[in-house]
Amino acid sequence: MSITPMWRVDRDGSMFTDKKAAEEHDRMLELADGITGMLEANFKIDEQLAEEIGLLMSRNKDILAKAFKGKPEVLQEIQSGSEPAADNTVDIREAVA
Amino acid sequence: MSITPMWRVDRDGSMFTDKKAAEEHDRMLELADGITGMLEANFKIDEQLAEEIGLLMSRNKDILAKAFKGKPEVLQEIQSGSEPAADNTVDIREAVA
Repeated sequence: MSITPMWRVDRDGSMFTDKKAAEEHDRMLELADGITGMLEANFKIDEQLAEEIGLLMSRNKDILAKAFKGKPEVLQEIQSGSEPAADNTVDIREAVA
Repeated sequence: MSITPMWRVDRDGSMFTDKKAAEEHDRMLELADGITGMLEANFKIDEQLAEEIGLLMSRNKDILAKAFKGKPEVLQEIQSGSEPAADNTVDIREAVA
């Protein structure tokens, strides 16, 4: 018999084996929802666009926090294509290229 | 003869008698431009909407900084109608109402 404890993030149903990762993901979605809600409360904006902006900003929350604390130039680092490096390890293919 | 030293914020031409206020305004516009640029670099978005979002977020930078540092619930305080209180004095009419 083999069973594995899993953690489900109720906001989007995604599953995690690691509790901390699940909590992190839930906090990310909560912040994204907050930004989306703030945009929709203050602007006539397309719902999907508001959600995508919320997610992009939430995924880059550390960069955004720096920008709002007086370093707006860091905003240029945000590219929706690239996931922010979870840590500062360089992709090995880039490193050896 | 009466002449007054003024400070012009080149980004939008606004004039200030107080240098610190001019610098503050310039930083606010720089952050707003940074957010607008980030939105336009990552989304198909109406230019004016991107500018209005940039200004709203920049004007509420302290609330946004808190939200990105783990308190997303503060985002509900942001209302585009109300200018954030420059300081914590309550409008006297409200206080005595």
